[in-house]
Amino acid sequence: MIVVLAGGVGGARFLQGVVQVVPPAEVTAIVNTGDDRQFYGLHVSPDIDIVIYTLAGVVDERHGWGIRDDTYHVMQQLTRYGHEDWFLLGDRDLATHIHRSLRLRQGRTPSEVTDELRRLFGLTLRILPMSDDPVATHIQTPVGLLHFQEYMVKRRCMDEVQGVVFVGLEQARPAPGVLEALRQAEAVLLAPSNPIVSIGSILALPGVRETLQETSATVAAISPIVGGAPLKGPADKLMRGLGCEVSALGVARCYADFLDVMVIDQQDAALAPAIEALGPRVLVTDTIMRDNEAKIHLAREVLHSCARAV
Amino acid sequence: MIVVLAGGVGGARFLQGVVQVVPPAEVTAIVNTGDDRQFYGLHVSPDIDIVIYTLAGVVDERHGWGIRDDTYHVMQQLTRYGHEDWFLLGDRDLATHIHRSLRLRQGRTPSEVTDELRRLFGLTLRILPMSDDPVATHIQTPVGLLHFQEYMVKRRCMDEVQGVVFVGLEQARPAPGVLEALRQAEAVLLAPSNPIVSIGSILALPGVRETLQETSATVAAISPIVGGAPLKGPADKLMRGLGCEVSALGVARCYADFLDVMVIDQQDAALAPAIEALGPRVLVTDTIMRDNEAKIHLAREVLHSCARAV
Repeated sequence: MIVVLAGGVGGARFLQGVVQVVPPAEVTAIVNTGDDRQFYGLHVSPDIDIVIYTLAGVVDERHGWGIRDDTYHVMQQLTRYGHEDWFLLGDRDLATHIHRSLRLRQGRTPSEVTDELRRLFGLTLRILPMSDDPVATHIQTPVGLLHFQEYMVKRRCMDEVQGVVFVGLEQARPAPGVLEALRQAEAVLLAPSNPIVSIGSILALPGVRETLQETSATVAAISPIVGGAPLKGPADKLMRGLGCEVSALGVARCYADFLDVMVIDQQDAALAPAIEALGPRVLVTDTIMRDNEAKIHLAREVLHSCARAV
Repeated sequence: MIVVLAGGVGGARFLQGVVQVVPPAEVTAIVNTGDDRQFYGLHVSPDIDIVIYTLAGVVDERHGWGIRDDTYHVMQQLTRYGHEDWFLLGDRDLATHIHRSLRLRQGRTPSEVTDELRRLFGLTLRILPMSDDPVATHIQTPVGLLHFQEYMVKRRCMDEVQGVVFVGLEQARPAPGVLEALRQAEAVLLAPSNPIVSIGSILALPGVRETLQETSATVAAISPIVGGAPLKGPADKLMRGLGCEVSALGVARCYADFLDVMVIDQQDAALAPAIEALGPRVLVTDTIMRDNEAKIHLAREVLHSCARAV
């Protein structure tokens, strides 16, 4: 069994490669839910939906989120009713949020709803939300504590990052199956997702970090920082705000206490010795998933490297 | 002040005439909410929305409900998730239900939400839901007790009507302002809406019928039955099921205990003596609202007749 810890776009694209290299039924994705937020009273779980839409082949490739060729008629009308419209939710996408909200109000857990959606989209890998308990990633800034979506989408990452707070973390447990999956996996792969808010929120859950330290699985991470900058999203601002070096080395330091293999891009080959000095072996390869071939190549390289590391 | 008791399409069209004859600020509509139902966890209030959309000029004239030129992308996606789609909710229309559901969950009352929507659509008449408490009109049939929308929309009125039950009625009170409006009005007009399930639900609320019997207002009703058949909807099936004659006379009997003026179509002029024998004066006029002129004409005739009746 291969376990992938994933955030949104980077995680979903990495998973696309993995499920073409390993039978999907042998893959478990553990997905960040720290970005979840209510919009218009509906529960939106952006990273779960990005993973499902991407693997189902219906994602809007241009954005990396949402459903392809979607319309925005509901939101346009809600705007007429005075609602904010900074978080774009297409009409077909809203059906997912309406469905999820209905099921949650009917007493289903996020795990159950995620599994139902997975099945409805015809996917055979296992997808687990990181937790069935609410954890809300907030960014401490000079204008106050902002929900991650407000920081990133509404205010376009313009505020200085002074800290990250996972609200609700103390009361949260990993979702059923998460720790077992980490313990029983052959390999645990940390997707090239934001190490602070996508992977970081999963690692912050009670027991996750300890389980990764103790598991017999080979743990590999792919750096989302290439050539000193993230391929997408605000990982640089968040890492810098928390005093991390914005580099593959900085990412490796976030994971050093449990990491067996660090996967970095050829552009960053010079960082390999410094990363190896932290403990993990280093795999230098092409990590930029510019097309399907590149996704398959990266997944194959990472999995081969894990097999060799055993 | 003119008060209009209204259901959906017939009530909304009659109100269109009234607000062109009387300043809208002097009109209060009391609207049936017995047809309300949850769809996909969202609170849908069909008659309120029909009245608002119609008076705001955005209604889909072809159906009489919904917003003109709306799309059905959310519902199409919900259908893919296994949901029923027998009650058509357009995308822009769904924004209303999302907004209403959000407000109700935030603790607002149906009256408050109705008034907010009225204002958002730029309307200056007063619109009151009949009650802030849940009342759900059900039809007793050989296949069991069906919610009115299931009886009418899902099963297309195919079941024999054995009775009508307003579930929740015992615990329901008229919405704030309803009884006061009936007491203080110059005229109370019962729109040409279904006498059993649209007007009947309002009349069934504690105190409404008694207040109509006691009010100094002139109370007039427009028959929705013309030439022995309803212009729209299943009023004939419901009346027959409850043992009422399907005619303007049958409608007049439903209201006889408080009615001052019964308005019937020219086609039904021969019924005038029998109706007058019940008590009310009869106004014979053209009641079919085929265009805006006809709506204005009907409203003017009804109001003149009320003024004469004082």
